[in-house]
Amino acid sequence: MSTFNTRQILLTSRPQGLLKESDIARTETTLDHIDQGQIIIKNRYLSLDPAISVWMSDMDNNYLPPIPLGHPVWCTVIGEIVKSRSTKYAVGDTVWGMGNWSDYSIAPEDYVFPADMTLGLPINNHLSVLGAVGMTGYYGILDVGKPVAGETVLISAAAGAVGSIAGQIAKISGCHVVGLAGTQAKCDWITKDLGFDGAINYRKTDNMAQAIANVCPNGVDIYFDNVGGEILSATLKNLAKNARILFCGWMSTYNNDESLPGPHNMWQILAKTARLEGFLISDYFGDFENGVPTMANWVKEGKIKFKEDIVEGLENTPEAFLKLFNGTNDGKLMVKV
Amino acid sequence: MSTFNTRQILLTSRPQGLLKESDIARTETTLDHIDQGQIIIKNRYLSLDPAISVWMSDMDNNYLPPIPLGHPVWCTVIGEIVKSRSTKYAVGDTVWGMGNWSDYSIAPEDYVFPADMTLGLPINNHLSVLGAVGMTGYYGILDVGKPVAGETVLISAAAGAVGSIAGQIAKISGCHVVGLAGTQAKCDWITKDLGFDGAINYRKTDNMAQAIANVCPNGVDIYFDNVGGEILSATLKNLAKNARILFCGWMSTYNNDESLPGPHNMWQILAKTARLEGFLISDYFGDFENGVPTMANWVKEGKIKFKEDIVEGLENTPEAFLKLFNGTNDGKLMVKV
Repeated sequence: MSTFNTRQILLTSRPQGLLKESDIARTETTLDHIDQGQIIIKNRYLSLDPAISVWMSDMDNNYLPPIPLGHPVWCTVIGEIVKSRSTKYAVGDTVWGMGNWSDYSIAPEDYVFPADMTLGLPINNHLSVLGAVGMTGYYGILDVGKPVAGETVLISAAAGAVGSIAGQIAKISGCHVVGLAGTQAKCDWITKDLGFDGAINYRKTDNMAQAIANVCPNGVDIYFDNVGGEILSATLKNLAKNARILFCGWMSTYNNDESLPGPHNMWQILAKTARLEGFLISDYFGDFENGVPTMANWVKEGKIKFKEDIVEGLENTPEAFLKLFNGTNDGKLMVKV
Repeated sequence: MSTFNTRQILLTSRPQGLLKESDIARTETTLDHIDQGQIIIKNRYLSLDPAISVWMSDMDNNYLPPIPLGHPVWCTVIGEIVKSRSTKYAVGDTVWGMGNWSDYSIAPEDYVFPADMTLGLPINNHLSVLGAVGMTGYYGILDVGKPVAGETVLISAAAGAVGSIAGQIAKISGCHVVGLAGTQAKCDWITKDLGFDGAINYRKTDNMAQAIANVCPNGVDIYFDNVGGEILSATLKNLAKNARILFCGWMSTYNNDESLPGPHNMWQILAKTARLEGFLISDYFGDFENGVPTMANWVKEGKIKFKEDIVEGLENTPEAFLKLFNGTNDGKLMVKV
């Protein structure tokens, strides 16, 4: 029977604030037995995402239980199947899905999706532009936002992995696209390299509502909201009639604190008959086989640019994870195992 | 040239709190000249609605300017055209639309819509069940909510003119319908007379989120929100996956105060990939010719029940208007001129 020696990084206590070395344990174990419907993936890359901090906590996030203490930290992984008791996947298939901070992951077949290597793009691209991050921009803009050429699209965290792709897809859709970012360098990157029509450095802006009005004179038709909080309140004052707000993740209230009230100016949603819609990319995983080839073509044609920040070595995963929270990652963060 | 003597109730100062006699003036004048595109309506009934208090104030409501001081108070009216310089309407046509607290209203043809008297229902019904109030329930549930049989629909202010009709249309759609109301008598009316499946007396409920969970065990698929505030916060904790929230008017924050934050638990909109959508019935006025006959049939078949609270006499309009704010009206409030 084939066995696989694997390093694992276990969650041993729930982090208070940022993840510390004392919250984890580094172990080695051997994977051999899997149940019917399970596979073992040889992890090539690990995806590091803010949501992992939610899974590490014990708060009710309504879509996944907390990571049990003593278990390896969960994350999205990509790699080849080395053992399969699945009727859907065979040894040798390249798949991505729910795995662990480890060399090998055991995964249930229903939490795994095929990565189409015939598209001719590197495997790591399937965790960035062709993965949940890039496809959030794709489905968020196209399926929820439903842009019409000439409409104004505002993107928060626009230099981030999701926002930068969302904005480029809005450009492909013929929209006037404005991004919010926190440094002049990021503002320059989205306007000069990615083709955004405008940018607002929110750290240099005293009156956000007025700043948005200045660059979106016809109002905001689609707001791709990655942050919530005051920027959402300011955007609500600038909605165009029948605006769509995609609620893709609110970094500013990521801790799901019930005591926190919602944004100001909610009345504007009625006045402008706007729509605020929650978006979880996991609802679209089953459709990736349709959307990913389109995205891959845009990448090959140079219409979609993106950055990856690849850290080498499983052992460096916990330290790399912190880059998400001190803002030092440059592009979609992942670990090459 | 035909002339029309009319009493008018003018707004002379912006009310601080409830409308007072000192905020208005009662005058008489003669209407004769109208511009091309205008009509004169002999008002039969005036519709009294909470939004009039917004129009009386000088706050920015984003869809209408404030009523100019010295002008007659605006309201929806229904009556026959007695003079027309419109290519759309002729003398004798029964129409409803934007008019005044007066015997006769001058209206621009674009703010007026035909009332189909061939449907065989009394003219006043065109300001209640067949008017903006009833059709808010119709389009709100059917066009925005898009109910699927078996889904759970929660209605706030469920014994009100809008909510009671919304709930009955949700029942016609095969849904499990629960209403929120403020007295036991109202709860009894919606369950026993209107066929709602359940009711919550929110004045007798300490833990609203738990109370909703008790009567909506599968979560809330559609929330028809007439009130906002704490009930919305509690409902957000009980959303079903892909829930739709119709934002039809938030009585609790009707004063558009920018300092007021939004509801708690907004995070649930992401967690449940829910949709919060603003709804203004004025966007549907042009479609009434399609929807109203269906509603009229349901009324004639006894499937839709409704109440009207008709006050006699134009002179009693200001006093009647206050019934909306002390909760003493019983059904859709209107004045028979």
